Amino acid sequence: MDMESDNKKWCLKGNKEFMAASSITVRGVLDMLREKLNPEDSRPLIPLGHGDPSPFSCFRTTPFAEIAVSDALYSGDFNGYSSSVGILPARRAIAKYLSSDLPYELSPDDVFMTLGCTHAIEILLAVLASPNANILLPRPGFPLYEARAAYSHLEVRHFDLIPEKDWEVNLDSVETLADENTVAMVIINPGNPCGNVFKYQHLQKVAETAKKLGILVISDEVYGHLTFGSNPFVPMGVFGEITPIITIGSISKRWIVPGWRLGWLVTNDPNGILKKHEVVDCLKSLMNISTDPVTFIQAAVPQIIENTKEDFFSNIVDILREAADICYNRLKDIPCISCPSKPEGSMFVMVKLNLDLLEGIKDDVDFCSKLAEEESVMVLPGSTLGFKHYLRITFAVDTSYLTDGFDRMKAFYQRHAKIQ
Amino acid sequence: MDMESDNKKWCLKGNKEFMAASSITVRGVLDMLREKLNPEDSRPLIPLGHGDPSPFSCFRTTPFAEIAVSDALYSGDFNGYSSSVGILPARRAIAKYLSSDLPYELSPDDVFMTLGCTHAIEILLAVLASPNANILLPRPGFPLYEARAAYSHLEVRHFDLIPEKDWEVNLDSVETLADENTVAMVIINPGNPCGNVFKYQHLQKVAETAKKLGILVISDEVYGHLTFGSNPFVPMGVFGEITPIITIGSISKRWIVPGWRLGWLVTNDPNGILKKHEVVDCLKSLMNISTDPVTFIQAAVPQIIENTKEDFFSNIVDILREAADICYNRLKDIPCISCPSKPEGSMFVMVKLNLDLLEGIKDDVDFCSKLAEEESVMVLPGSTLGFKHYLRITFAVDTSYLTDGFDRMKAFYQRHAKIQ
Ligand SMILES: Cc1ncc(COP(=O)(O)O)c(C=O)c1O
Ligand SMILES: Cc1ncc(COP(=O)(O)O)c(C=O)c1O
Repeated sequence: MDMESDNKKWCLKGNKEFMAASSITVRGVLDMLREKLNPEDSRPLIPLGHGDPSPFSCFRTTPFAEIAVSDALYSGDFNGYSSSVGILPARRAIAKYLSSDLPYELSPDDVFMTLGCTHAIEILLAVLASPNANILLPRPGFPLYEARAAYSHLEVRHFDLIPEKDWEVNLDSVETLADENTVAMVIINPGNPCGNVFKYQHLQKVAETAKKLGILVISDEVYGHLTFGSNPFVPMGVFGEITPIITIGSISKRWIVPGWRLGWLVTNDPNGILKKHEVVDCLKSLMNISTDPVTFIQAAVPQIIENTKEDFFSNIVDILREAADICYNRLKDIPCISCPSKPEGSMFVMVKLNLDLLEGIKDDVDFCSKLAEEESVMVLPGSTLGFKHYLRITFAVDTSYLTDGFDRMKAFYQRHAKIQ
Repeated sequence: MDMESDNKKWCLKGNKEFMAASSITVRGVLDMLREKLNPEDSRPLIPLGHGDPSPFSCFRTTPFAEIAVSDALYSGDFNGYSSSVGILPARRAIAKYLSSDLPYELSPDDVFMTLGCTHAIEILLAVLASPNANILLPRPGFPLYEARAAYSHLEVRHFDLIPEKDWEVNLDSVETLADENTVAMVIINPGNPCGNVFKYQHLQKVAETAKKLGILVISDEVYGHLTFGSNPFVPMGVFGEITPIITIGSISKRWIVPGWRLGWLVTNDPNGILKKHEVVDCLKSLMNISTDPVTFIQAAVPQIIENTKEDFFSNIVDILREAADICYNRLKDIPCISCPSKPEGSMFVMVKLNLDLLEGIKDDVDFCSKLAEEESVMVLPGSTLGFKHYLRITFAVDTSYLTDGFDRMKAFYQRHAKIQ
C-alpha cells in the first residue's frame, strides 16, 4: 500500500444507517447459515430456507413466457428507455389481468410497473415516509419491509398475526397501535411466512378497520393465486370502495421467474382518495428519478398473461399442494416441531419449536445453525421474521429433497432430544 | 364519489420532497416540450432532445447481443434471483472488460452490477449521503445527480466546466468549493451535455486535485468509447493509484440498449481506501435491500462483450462522427447559435444562444418551446442542465432527420431574427 495515501486524511465515509437497516434480511441470514455448512458432508444441500424454487426442473416456467420475452427482444422495438411509470401495453395488460377479479375496472393509470415486488416496496415506503409518519407491519412478516422503512426513516409498529386463528390479523392490536400519524398497514396474502390465506370476511374486516383509522391498506399479493386449501385467493382490491388499497405483485412467484424482475404497484381506489392526497403524484415523482423495469420484458407482459395455459398454473398449484401435505405430515414425526396451521398458500409454513424437548439448543437461530452444520439442511429461523422460537420452512422444492430433508430433520431431533 | 369517504379525515400523505427533488429532469422537460407540439403539423417530429437513439434503424444493436440474451433466457438456468451484488460471471466479465484499459487488474469483487447507470447513481449518492456531507457536481451536468442528491439529503455544490477550454473542469473552483465535509466530485466523460472528451493530462490533474482534497472521484463513463475526435477515451480508473475512483457505466449507450437496464459500479481503488472507510460495506448493505438487474441479462454479459464484433462499434462511432460534423457545420448557418467546442464524444453538443439576435424570445426555455410549437423540433434548454442561454442538441439520430432539423431551425431563426 502507498504510504502517503495511507497517512492521508480522507473525507470519505459511507452512510452507515444502511448497515443497520439491512442487518436482518433473509438473504443475510441464509448467507450466515451457508457458512455453517460442513464441506465434508457429501450429501446434497437441502435448501428449505429460500423463496426461489426456480432451480428445480419441476418448477420451470412455461415456454410461452420465454417465447414472449424472446419475441419482444428480437423485434428490436423495445431496446429503448421505458416511460417512468412503465409502457402502456404492460400497464393495460396488468389492469385487465387484475380487474377480472374485481367488482370495478382498473385503468392503466392505476398501474405502475416495477422491478419486482421488491422495487414496489422500496418506492412505496419511501413515498409514505413523510416526517413523523408510521406504518403498521405484520409480525411475523417479511423483513424487507422493516429494512426499507428504516432506510426511509419511516417508523414501524408491529401488529401480531395469531397462530391459533390461522394467522389472522389481530385487529384489536391494529387499532391500539394506530394514531394520527399512521399512514398504512401491510398485509401479505397469501402469507409469507405463514402459508395462510385470508378469508373474504377477514379481509373485509381489515378494510373496515383501516377505514375507521383513516389509513391505506398495502396488500402484498406476490403469492397471489398460489393457493391449494379451502380458502380461495381474494385480492384485497375487492374492498377498494371501503378504503384505499394499494396492491403489489409480480410475475416472480406465479410464473416462477423471480430473476426477470417484473412487478407492479396498483392503486385500487375507485373513490380517488390517494390521488386527492397527492400520494399518486409523489409516486410518479419518485418513479421519474428511478430506474425502470426492462422495456422488452414489459413488452412481453400482454403475451405472457394471454398465452400461459391454465394447466401450467394448475400443475404448479398441484405440486405445491402435494409438497405442503408431505411437509405437514412429516412434521408430525418430529416432536420438537409443531404446526399451528396447515399451509394453504404461498410456499412456506411457519412452525413452532419446542426447545424443552431438546438438549443443548439455545434458540431458533442455534437450531438452524446446527441443522445446517450437521445435516446440510437450511431452514429460516423465526427470529429473522420477528418471531422467536419459530421456523419458516419452504416446501417449494423437488419432492425427493423434501422427504430427504425431513428424514434428516428427524435424525437431528433424535440426536438432540432431551432424555426425559 | 362516496360521500362518507369524501368527508372522512384520511391520514394519508406522500412525502412531497420527491416532487421538489424531481421537479427538473430531462424526462420532465421533454414531456413539457412535447405538449407544445402542434398536432396540425404534418411533418415528422425531429427529436434532438433525448439521449436514446435506439428507435433509429441505423442504431440497432448487434444481433450478437440479442442472441446472447436469448440464449441465457432459454437456458432456464437464470430464472432465479441474482445475488445482491450481481452474479459472478457478469462481474468477472466486466472486471476483465474494464481492466484491459487499466494499469492494474480489477477483481470481480470491485464490480457491482446495477440496473443501468441510473441505478448506480441512485445507490452511490444514497451511500455517500452521511449527515452534513456534500458533493461537487459539474455545471452543466446531468440533472439526475441533482435529483438523487436532493432525494438523499446530500448537499450539492457546483463547479463549472469552461466552454472556452473544451469544457474542462475549473479546478480552481473545485478547490474553493470543497471543505472537510466534501466526499466526492463527479465528472462525466465523454461528456453529457457537452460532447467533450477529457485529455489524459486533465484527468490526471482532476485526480491530483481530488487527492489533495481527500475526496473520491466518481467518473460517469456511460458514454465510454463513444469518441470520434482527437482525444481518445481515457478511463478515469487509470488514476486509481492517485485517489480512489468509482466508475459507473452501462451497456445502454455503447450497445444502444438503454431499455435492457444493465450497468455497473466499479471501485478503482488499488490502495483499498474505499474499503478501509467502509464505503464498500455501505454499498453492499444498500444493495442487499435493493432490487437487482435481471439475472438472464447479467448472464449474457460475458457473451455480449466477447461476441460483439469490432465493426459494430466502429460503425456506430462513424455514424456519430458524421452526425457531429453535420451538426457542427450546419450550426454555422444559424447566427443566433454558436458552438464553443466541436463535439468529440457522446451524442450531444452544448451550444450558446445569442438572444440579442432574436426578436420576442425570452430565454432558452422559450426558444425550445417555440421551436417545438412552430417547427416540431425538440431540443433541450440549457437551464434544465443548470446552464442558461444554452441548448443541448442530440445528433444521434438518422442523418435525414438531422439535416431536416437544421433546415427547420434555420427557418425558425430567420422568422425570429431581429431586424438590425
Ligand atoms: C412477501 C414478499 N413480498 C415481496 C417479495 C419480493 O418479490 P419480487 O421477486 O417480486 O421482488 C417477496 C419475495 O420473496 C416476498 O416473499
Ligand atoms: C451522463 C449520464 N449518466 C447516466 C445516464 C443513465 O444511463 P443508463 O441508461 O445506464 O441508466 C445517462 C443517460 O442518458 C447519462 O446521460
